[in-house]
Amino acid sequence: MKIAAYRHQGQPGVGRITADGKQVEPFQLSPEQAARGALPIVEAQVAGRALPATGAPIALDQVQLLAPIPQPRRNIFCVGKNYHAHAKEFAGSGFDSSAKSHGDIPAEPIFFTKVPESVIGHGADILHPGEVSGAIDYECELGVIIGKGGKGIKRADAMNHVWGYTIINDVTARDWQSRHQQWMLGKSFDTFCPMGPWIVTADELDGRDTNIRLWVNGEKRQEANTKDFIFDIPKMIETLSGGITIYPGDVIATGTPVGVGIGFKPPKYLQPGDVVRLEIDGIGVLENKLR
Amino acid sequence: MKIAAYRHQGQPGVGRITADGKQVEPFQLSPEQAARGALPIVEAQVAGRALPATGAPIALDQVQLLAPIPQPRRNIFCVGKNYHAHAKEFAGSGFDSSAKSHGDIPAEPIFFTKVPESVIGHGADILHPGEVSGAIDYECELGVIIGKGGKGIKRADAMNHVWGYTIINDVTARDWQSRHQQWMLGKSFDTFCPMGPWIVTADELDGRDTNIRLWVNGEKRQEANTKDFIFDIPKMIETLSGGITIYPGDVIATGTPVGVGIGFKPPKYLQPGDVVRLEIDGIGVLENKLR
Repeated sequence: MKIAAYRHQGQPGVGRITADGKQVEPFQLSPEQAARGALPIVEAQVAGRALPATGAPIALDQVQLLAPIPQPRRNIFCVGKNYHAHAKEFAGSGFDSSAKSHGDIPAEPIFFTKVPESVIGHGADILHPGEVSGAIDYECELGVIIGKGGKGIKRADAMNHVWGYTIINDVTARDWQSRHQQWMLGKSFDTFCPMGPWIVTADELDGRDTNIRLWVNGEKRQEANTKDFIFDIPKMIETLSGGITIYPGDVIATGTPVGVGIGFKPPKYLQPGDVVRLEIDGIGVLENKLR
Repeated sequence: MKIAAYRHQGQPGVGRITADGKQVEPFQLSPEQAARGALPIVEAQVAGRALPATGAPIALDQVQLLAPIPQPRRNIFCVGKNYHAHAKEFAGSGFDSSAKSHGDIPAEPIFFTKVPESVIGHGADILHPGEVSGAIDYECELGVIIGKGGKGIKRADAMNHVWGYTIINDVTARDWQSRHQQWMLGKSFDTFCPMGPWIVTADELDGRDTNIRLWVNGEKRQEANTKDFIFDIPKMIETLSGGITIYPGDVIATGTPVGVGIGFKPPKYLQPGDVVRLEIDGIGVLENKLR
């Protein structure tokens, strides 16, 4: 099942993408529920309730896609340095101050957050912050959507807590990330979390083995398989839920592979007008333009 | 004006503490609004609307205080290493991996977050996580509540965005903070953000010059004045809003002074049964017991 949030004739909606990928079947939700995107659907499934009935399909080209969770209920959890080659690339860039004390490859997962209001959907513009930062970078990432919540979740049980997957571009102001030591600030600028185009439920995709790719203006920059995670999805969920209760609809961005702009010499930062296209097999394409 | 959130006869309420400090005058709010704590009051003031009418006062000893914002709308922003003596103490503890690359005293503010669900009120228990961490520490901090939102706010205008102040105990699992490099995980355990006892509005207190103190089981551990911030409140707001739009009701925990448990040799970690009492002049007392 692919669940999309969208705007149609000025109203927010949530629906199921049809098998041919050309239409969306709208769930019958109140406007307040529809504004929450996929969250009411996640919550209904977790609670064992029937999904809302669906109405007449709408052609996808008649709607404006929104992020599948346009306003997460708390900051998005993000894992840093979670692919070997990227961890080395980042350490070698000189921007990774933690490499001095912790080495290139982390011994335990690194979690930071992005504020919910940084989220935008497929097709929306990423706002270049102009003079505030000239070091804007992209990061293609698999997003994990939590279904059943919990605390102290063990590896063996962790995949039962995954409701689905989406694509996340963990856009980053590298100078801010480095200068302020903790990464949240440089990761949370307005529009710095493109997410979409929709959520694919876990029965249709195994996020532990899928290909992810990113292009800037048609030039392929990143290509990897999630098998190459340093810390796999069960380890991420076990670690995150060790002291923190996780809830249905929580989002985990699972880290990015080698090929970010900061890894090039000189760095290839994003500029206004650039188009960033992310693709994950089994999910689809998330594309956003810098403005 | 002191605004408290509370539970009375099983229902959530929000009210104004009377001048004698012994009663609370409840605002007339729907249960949904009352559950948001001070947020509807902040929003009304920011929008220039009249505050809701108040009803007959209730004796404070008849209510159970809740955190003034029991469920912040996104993670709490926190500033790390913001008092000189504490920054040195933390660097000297061996737990501050960033000191190697960035020095003891940060050149720019360090921001991280705590999840909203870590918030508890005055009198609620802090849950010791048992075997998950044996290095639980306290941090007495002034909390800033944002009123008028904005982006790109300059120093000179920043204090106009402060709606009020509260007390925050930035409880921390030191081993997690160190091991996972980014601090969010070790700072966000369930119950690790005691906040209260209420919010004092900015017309009644200047957070730039007030005394803060903390005791553990009656032993004074921290005592400082917010004049000793490395980065003052205007600088914090300028930095935070540089790339991120801030909103009414956002919370900033402004950092802790010298005297945390990790600063002692051997460290003085919190144990079940310990009582942590925080006091800030002009606000009041926030006390919580470890369980």
